[in-house]
Amino acid sequence: MENPFTDEYFMKKALQEAETAFEKDEIPVGAIIVIDNKVIARSHNLTELLNDVTAHAEMQAITAAANFIGGKYLKDCTLYVTLEPCQMCAGALYWSQISKIVFGASDENRGFEKMGTQLHPKTTVVRGILANEATDLIKRFFAEKRK
Amino acid sequence: MENPFTDEYFMKKALQEAETAFEKDEIPVGAIIVIDNKVIARSHNLTELLNDVTAHAEMQAITAAANFIGGKYLKDCTLYVTLEPCQMCAGALYWSQISKIVFGASDENRGFEKMGTQLHPKTTVVRGILANEATDLIKRFFAEKRK
Repeated sequence: MENPFTDEYFMKKALQEAETAFEKDEIPVGAIIVIDNKVIARSHNLTELLNDVTAHAEMQAITAAANFIGGKYLKDCTLYVTLEPCQMCAGALYWSQISKIVFGASDENRGFEKMGTQLHPKTTVVRGILANEATDLIKRFFAEKRK
Repeated sequence: MENPFTDEYFMKKALQEAETAFEKDEIPVGAIIVIDNKVIARSHNLTELLNDVTAHAEMQAITAAANFIGGKYLKDCTLYVTLEPCQMCAGALYWSQISKIVFGASDENRGFEKMGTQLHPKTTVVRGILANEATDLIKRFFAEKRK
């Protein structure tokens, strides 16, 4: 039997979070954190509602996952996030020593890869999973904003 | 009359926060945020107590200051922090568009300047205010830890 727990499978859950952000009039970015194929944290961008630049989806997911685990290091965890993390979120992921980061769309302007933010040596990165879906959602959000 | 509101004046308040962190068995880093010579946020590192890598003094101060202001941009605000911010905190400060960052001791290993994290173009930086006091506190903390 084929393994149903693919990166696409979990990224769809992150996209559902991004859609929830969209409905709340937030830039639609969603994240989940998974350990042993189990979702232990789910979150979406809340910077507007909370009036807080630190309320990115990833930051909330890191806090929630650490709370679930009962420790601050996210060993054996994978973050799925619809948009490439920024400097802040990549910096937080560095401290968390997370095992794997899977992101959807690249952020050519503010993404950590262009900005040169360092991840922990233990962290591996997978790019471009359901990137079109993530980008379409963000484009649709800004198109509605311009109306 | 001399202006009492110098960078040293406010950094002493950040150092008091660092001492509170020390008493809680946290790596002693403290921060305050000031607007119009008024302290609107004070915080210290709580990563151990909260089991959360995102609970750096600066992150908490940014959230608290935005809450006080009622908006997420820290225009006309100055952050005083006893230790040079890391990638995560510098990344958060980038988003906040804070006017000025004053830090005490440099962090040669994990500080944002060595790591190359970008601040917002509107942000100015002052380095080395009461740096010895900040460093002494951190050295004393780790010396006690090794006992």
